[in-house]
Amino acid sequence: MGVLRKTQNTPANRFFFFLHRLSITTTTTRPKTLAAVQQQQRPFWQNDPTMASQEAPKTCKVILADTIAKKLLAEVRDSLPGLKGADAGKPTLAAFLANDDPAAVQYAEWSKKTCEENGFAFDLRRVDKEDLEEAIITANNDAAVDGIIVYYPIWPGNHQQDKYIQETVSLAKDVEGLCHTHLFNMYHNVRFLDPPANQKKSILPCTPLAIVKALEHLQIYNPILAYGNRLFGKTITVINRSEVNGRPLAALLANDGATVYSVDITGVQLFTRGSGIRALRHQVHEKEGWGLKDVLPLSDVVIGGVPVESFKVPIELVRDGAVCINFSSFRNFDGPAVKEKASIYVPSIGKVTIAVLLRNLVRLIANQAVKS
Amino acid sequence: MGVLRKTQNTPANRFFFFLHRLSITTTTTRPKTLAAVQQQQRPFWQNDPTMASQEAPKTCKVILADTIAKKLLAEVRDSLPGLKGADAGKPTLAAFLANDDPAAVQYAEWSKKTCEENGFAFDLRRVDKEDLEEAIITANNDAAVDGIIVYYPIWPGNHQQDKYIQETVSLAKDVEGLCHTHLFNMYHNVRFLDPPANQKKSILPCTPLAIVKALEHLQIYNPILAYGNRLFGKTITVINRSEVNGRPLAALLANDGATVYSVDITGVQLFTRGSGIRALRHQVHEKEGWGLKDVLPLSDVVIGGVPVESFKVPIELVRDGAVCINFSSFRNFDGPAVKEKASIYVPSIGKVTIAVLLRNLVRLIANQAVKS
Repeated sequence: MGVLRKTQNTPANRFFFFLHRLSITTTTTRPKTLAAVQQQQRPFWQNDPTMASQEAPKTCKVILADTIAKKLLAEVRDSLPGLKGADAGKPTLAAFLANDDPAAVQYAEWSKKTCEENGFAFDLRRVDKEDLEEAIITANNDAAVDGIIVYYPIWPGNHQQDKYIQETVSLAKDVEGLCHTHLFNMYHNVRFLDPPANQKKSILPCTPLAIVKALEHLQIYNPILAYGNRLFGKTITVINRSEVNGRPLAALLANDGATVYSVDITGVQLFTRGSGIRALRHQVHEKEGWGLKDVLPLSDVVIGGVPVESFKVPIELVRDGAVCINFSSFRNFDGPAVKEKASIYVPSIGKVTIAVLLRNLVRLIANQAVKS
Repeated sequence: MGVLRKTQNTPANRFFFFLHRLSITTTTTRPKTLAAVQQQQRPFWQNDPTMASQEAPKTCKVILADTIAKKLLAEVRDSLPGLKGADAGKPTLAAFLANDDPAAVQYAEWSKKTCEENGFAFDLRRVDKEDLEEAIITANNDAAVDGIIVYYPIWPGNHQQDKYIQETVSLAKDVEGLCHTHLFNMYHNVRFLDPPANQKKSILPCTPLAIVKALEHLQIYNPILAYGNRLFGKTITVINRSEVNGRPLAALLANDGATVYSVDITGVQLFTRGSGIRALRHQVHEKEGWGLKDVLPLSDVVIGGVPVESFKVPIELVRDGAVCINFSSFRNFDGPAVKEKASIYVPSIGKVTIAVLLRNLVRLIANQAVKS
C-alpha cells in the first residue's frame, strides 16, 4: 500500500486501481499478484489464460461422459416446469426388464438413479418375456406413462422377434427412437413427424444421438454453419455398423454434412450427401477393398463401437490431432497410446446416452401436447 | 380464444399456455403459429431452428470482415473505461504517412474513421520521408502518443531501409508488432515480454493476428483444447510467404498447433510443432517438389494472400467443405466457384485488421501500466 501511495499519479497506479475496482474480492487493498487479479477481469487484453511460455500444454484433452451429460441434464431439468400441467405427476418412464442380462440390469439401475435425481419417475416393470407384449400394450394405453423403454435383447439371437417388440411400443411413447417411423425419418433426414406443420420432432435413437451431442459439446459441429450442415467438411470413421448403433450413427452424421466411413468386418461403406452436400440426405457407396488403413488417415474423428475386448483401433493409422470417441463397453482405444496422438479423447458415452433418454422423454411429452 | 376455452384441460392447451407464459410479446392471447412461438422459447426441445425438412440449406456460409470486426471493436470499447486515468486523454494513435500510395491513404482514412467511432484519437502526420525518422523519435518521447503506425513502403524496393524505420519505433509504442523483439517472440512462440512475470503481452502483427481472430470467430480454433493448442488436428495452407504477412501467419498458426503448408512461388514449406505437437514452437521443413496440387486436397483451411489480380486458387483442388479466407486486396478465390465447394468463405479481412490495430493499442497501454 505504501508503494502505491508514493506513485499515485503514475499510469501503473491508475492501472492497479482500475484492476482493483473491477476485482470481485475486495479484502486486500492491493492485489497480491497481478496475474491473480487478471483472471478476474473482463477486458479482452487480460482474458487469455496465462501460460508459461516455455512449457508446452498437454496435447490430448480427455473429456468424460459425465461432463457432457451434466450439461444435457441441466437443459432437461430446466424444461420440466410447465411441461406438463401443474397438477400432473412427474414425467414417467416405464422400463421393461424381461431378461437377466447384467448389462441391461446395470443400465436400468443407472437410468433409475438419473431419472430420480432429475425430477422424473422411473417405473421398472420386471415381466416374463411371454407377457411382455401385453404389458407394453397396457403401458401404451396408460395416460400415466409418458415413455417406454425395453431392455434388449429379449430373445437373444432372434433379432426379428425383438424388432416385433420394438414395433409394439406406441410411436408416441417410443423414447428410444426404435419404431420404424422414427428410424425411417432418421435415415431419410426428415426431422419432424408432422410435415408440413413441423411441430413434432422425430425421436432419434439414444446412443447415436448421444454421440451427436458429444460432438456438439466438442465443437466438432460448427455452429457458424447452417443447422443441418454443421459437419460439412468433417471426415468421420465409425467402426461398427449395427442396426442399433453404428448404421444409424453413420446416417445421422452424414445427414448433418460429414463424409462418413462406416467400417465393419464386411468392409467399408461411404455415407455422404455428395459434392457440396447438395443432396438432401445421405447416400451409401460400397468402398470395395478399403479398410481402416485407408480411412483412418483421412479422418478428423474416429468413433469406436466394437463390442469385443480384443479389438483396438490401430493408433498408428490415426491422424495426428484426431478426435477419438469410444462408445463400446470395451475400450476400443489403448488409453496411453491414443493420448499421445489425439487432440480429444472421450473414453465412454454411457452417461450421455441416459441423459439423451430423458431428453427424448421431454420431447415425447411436448409432441403429445402438440398432437391433441 | 374460443377454441382454447373449449379444450382447457387437454395437454395441448396446457402446452400452449406454457408457451404463452414464456412468450416475450404478449399482445395476442394465442400465438398465431407455434413455429413463431418456438423461436422465442428456451427449452432445448424447441431450440433447434425450424427447417423445411425437404429443402437443403445453403452449403457455403459467407462471413464478412465487418461481422468479425464488430465483435472485436465491441471488446475494445468495453475495455476503454478505466484503461487510462479519468483525467487522461483518449488513447492516441500517431500515424505517419510519408508516401502517396493510394492503398496507404485509404487504409489511413479507414483507420481514422474506426478510431474516432470507437473512442480513440487518430493523429495523422504527413511527413517527408527524409524527416520520418526524427518525427518517429519525437512521437516515441511524447507521452500523449500511445501507439505509432507507419504506412509502408516508405522506400519502395528498399526493404532494408523500411526495416530500419520499423526498428526506430519504440517497442512500447509498436502497435503493428513489427519491431524485432515482437517478431522474435512471435516466431519463438513466446507470448509475453517479461518472463517469468508474464504480465506484458507481446504484440502480434495486425494482418496475421486478424486472420487468427477470424479463425477464432469461425470456430476453427477449438476452445475445448488447451490455450496454445487450439488448432491441433487442423491442416492449413497459406498462399503467400511475405515477411509482413505470410511467414508470420504460418508461424502463428503452427505455434497454435496446426499443420501449416506455406506456399509461394519458390515452393512449399511445412510449419509444424511435430508429431503430437510436442515441440514448444514450430519448425520449418522444405517440401521439395510439392505444390498446391499436393497441399490443397489435405487442407481444412485455405488462406490466400497473393497480391496480384491474375492469381486464383485452383478450386478443383480444394477439399469439399474447406474454409477459404482471402486477405489479398485482390480476390484470390473465384466467388461463385468457391461458394460451390467451401463450407465457409471470408472474402476479405481489412476491417478486422483495423480492429486488431486498436486492440493492439489497448494492449500497449496496459503493458505500459504494468511496466511503471
